[in-house]
Amino acid sequence: MLMKNNLIDSLERILPRKNILSQIEERYVYSQDASNLPDIKNIADAVVFVESIEQVQEVVKLAAKYKIPVICRGAGTNVVGACLIEHGGIVLNFSKMNKIIEINPKNMTARVQSGVIVGELQNEVEKYGLYYPPDPSNLAVSTIGGSIAQSSGGAKTFKYGSTKDYVIDMKVVMANGEILQTGASTIKNATGYNLGSLFVGSEGTLGIVVEATLKLIPKPETRQVLMAYFDKIEDAVSAVDEIIDEKVFPATIDFMDKNAIQTVEKFFPSGLLTDKEAALIIEIDGFLEAVKHQSEIILSILKKANASAIQYSTNENEYNKIWKARRSSMGACAKLKPNVTTDDVIVPRQNLAKLVLGIRRICEKYKLEVCMVGHVGDGSVHPQIPIDYSDEDEYKRFKLAKSEIYDLTANLDGILSGEHGIGALKRDYIHLVVNPLALEYMRMIKKTFDPDNILNPYKIF
Amino acid sequence: MLMKNNLIDSLERILPRKNILSQIEERYVYSQDASNLPDIKNIADAVVFVESIEQVQEVVKLAAKYKIPVICRGAGTNVVGACLIEHGGIVLNFSKMNKIIEINPKNMTARVQSGVIVGELQNEVEKYGLYYPPDPSNLAVSTIGGSIAQSSGGAKTFKYGSTKDYVIDMKVVMANGEILQTGASTIKNATGYNLGSLFVGSEGTLGIVVEATLKLIPKPETRQVLMAYFDKIEDAVSAVDEIIDEKVFPATIDFMDKNAIQTVEKFFPSGLLTDKEAALIIEIDGFLEAVKHQSEIILSILKKANASAIQYSTNENEYNKIWKARRSSMGACAKLKPNVTTDDVIVPRQNLAKLVLGIRRICEKYKLEVCMVGHVGDGSVHPQIPIDYSDEDEYKRFKLAKSEIYDLTANLDGILSGEHGIGALKRDYIHLVVNPLALEYMRMIKKTFDPDNILNPYKIF
Repeated sequence: MLMKNNLIDSLERILPRKNILSQIEERYVYSQDASNLPDIKNIADAVVFVESIEQVQEVVKLAAKYKIPVICRGAGTNVVGACLIEHGGIVLNFSKMNKIIEINPKNMTARVQSGVIVGELQNEVEKYGLYYPPDPSNLAVSTIGGSIAQSSGGAKTFKYGSTKDYVIDMKVVMANGEILQTGASTIKNATGYNLGSLFVGSEGTLGIVVEATLKLIPKPETRQVLMAYFDKIEDAVSAVDEIIDEKVFPATIDFMDKNAIQTVEKFFPSGLLTDKEAALIIEIDGFLEAVKHQSEIILSILKKANASAIQYSTNENEYNKIWKARRSSMGACAKLKPNVTTDDVIVPRQNLAKLVLGIRRICEKYKLEVCMVGHVGDGSVHPQIPIDYSDEDEYKRFKLAKSEIYDLTANLDGILSGEHGIGALKRDYIHLVVNPLALEYMRMIKKTFDPDNILNPYKIF
Repeated sequence: MLMKNNLIDSLERILPRKNILSQIEERYVYSQDASNLPDIKNIADAVVFVESIEQVQEVVKLAAKYKIPVICRGAGTNVVGACLIEHGGIVLNFSKMNKIIEINPKNMTARVQSGVIVGELQNEVEKYGLYYPPDPSNLAVSTIGGSIAQSSGGAKTFKYGSTKDYVIDMKVVMANGEILQTGASTIKNATGYNLGSLFVGSEGTLGIVVEATLKLIPKPETRQVLMAYFDKIEDAVSAVDEIIDEKVFPATIDFMDKNAIQTVEKFFPSGLLTDKEAALIIEIDGFLEAVKHQSEIILSILKKANASAIQYSTNENEYNKIWKARRSSMGACAKLKPNVTTDDVIVPRQNLAKLVLGIRRICEKYKLEVCMVGHVGDGSVHPQIPIDYSDEDEYKRFKLAKSEIYDLTANLDGILSGEHGIGALKRDYIHLVVNPLALEYMRMIKKTFDPDNILNPYKIF
């Protein structure tokens, strides 16, 4: 092992001094992420702000030489503890590697450094009439590198798929410091194994993505969002079924339960109707004529399904207002208690009502509040549970509830994460939904790619 | 090694006698595929028609015990020699494992055995108003298992992506006979590594896919196909650029050159205009209003881009007629000489004109005929070269031309296959487009998954 002072000295030979944080307060800050996990409290040995691929390679080679962990960090917004420090090591902070290298309208591709912010990329490509659909709720700060690491989805997965469907090429720094290129700037590729897909969702455990080429699509001409309220959760679920039966194809079918609606309205008044049991947020996009057509069909379905009130956007301002309310739910929930946690369980859509009602029942049993939102078109639910970690009894109840929620999800043929990842938070439960042989092959791949286990060690499994 | 008679005896303990072919003529037939490669002429030791996952497991366990190659076969329509026999072994024929196990409209998923024919699956799901977009040209006979093995695309990749975007779960028999499940019936999954994507396009070298769960989408309400003719190839390419600039989003932007048009018309008269240099085949789909809207925009672009004639479908019959002509090009080309070969090079779209003109120049240099079709929206070209393999001089020229086409593709930042795979045909060239480190990791994965190299050995690399 390299002593801490020696580590800093060695890093100073690779990076400008200003790019290295070595004070304990600084290292502490960058050893956290949005998971707020109280169980894991270890601190990085150093935090470095990399500015080039070569610097990443040099730092990784140093880490490889001394078998020190390397933990990559975009904006640290992940909620599963994927950026938490458990065994010391070097935090590679990508916030300075934030250049959009190229937007190529003819190829409909963008090439970016890992630290580029998702929302900024979206804004930039939209200037060319192009569109990058994956939109995690935290897109105003979260990075492409983080999206790739955690296989991010967002509200538009129902129609447009998630991050893995848009990454066509990457440069990856491997555990020995070498650079691997995974693909090409072509929108399809049947030339050898899909190495790229293996890195998407690998949470920095197989290699360090330093650059990505992303597929873009034409920006939809227009979009509209509808918000429909229901007096019964079951009616909201039936409405979703009806929409799917009718073969309209919204970009988004999202959901908020009563607690989520009331909590948002309490802290961020947005004109939401707080006496309702549930709301669906449905985005339709495409050519104006098709949006109008689908909007009419959906409105009629919603009315038939006993929607007790319907709001819809007629311009971009109203559109943003509805989305802002939906996206505020985690922030609002955070104001109920010192901490807030979210989750990301997902089931085949037919089992969704059972999952939502089951989560509510489990939280009631353990006397926990829960605000539920989710991408119900995908079968995905985010139960947001406000919590005070210093209340030991509450924390114990919380852990029991979580465990039951994962059991329920597994029993409903679901999986533990649709778009957040596993990180440190859910690794103890992954065996509930991934069969032992698949886990064994995942571990063999990890061993093959990172034999000394220096890349974000012990995350996922 | 197991002697051939013993092998047949051992197989008879696993499978009904009628499911085992052991005569040399039978084994010869199932040792070929649509690549027609004359260099590789080895014959399988046995051909078995599997009917259940358990049978696949038993055969693989037998092969593992005696280190005998196992080569999977759907319809044998692949054109890169992925099903060719080079080192003897057992052909696993999946044509009897052709059941659609479940179509689930609520989840918008289908679960199928590997031997299900792509076109049949499409027809079945369309009865539920659902849609499975990947449509390889040979979809009337090719199988889902083959599509997964070769990472098939088709005409609609431009808008809808390819096979890998629709496979959400698989059951895979591994080299030791164990069963691995890759995913779940959820449309997104961030729970551990993307093992599934690794099998898609792995050409049966990593595991044997016996069952797949596929994501479906709502069937587009309507569709229209336009066929526009041009007197100059460059005009056709500009028209494609204009369409992409205008941000319309056709399902397909396909291309036929003069030779392809003339050859189709000669053998399958379809009313094509044989005096033109090139044609674009553009499919638009979606809601009626949006199709009309896009159709108007595209027609006006085509006219401005000097299209000298435009045909378009106004009903399903006319739609099928145009597509039949486009899909006949390989069959027509096959009538020019005893054999026909196709290829599948792909470049970033901006380099497409250079690729098309370069291929034509190379074929002229080597005095080879070439009919070019392609999915130009994807940057993908299929140069179909009729050939008489018994003409040694022609075959020599053909090999030289192929090598130059691959060099050209690599120089244009392209790759060797967008949707056919590498197989035996292009493995000697894969290093031109895949960097050595990526190849090294692919080989390490192969070694990890199939340490005795019994699964379709030596294909891809």
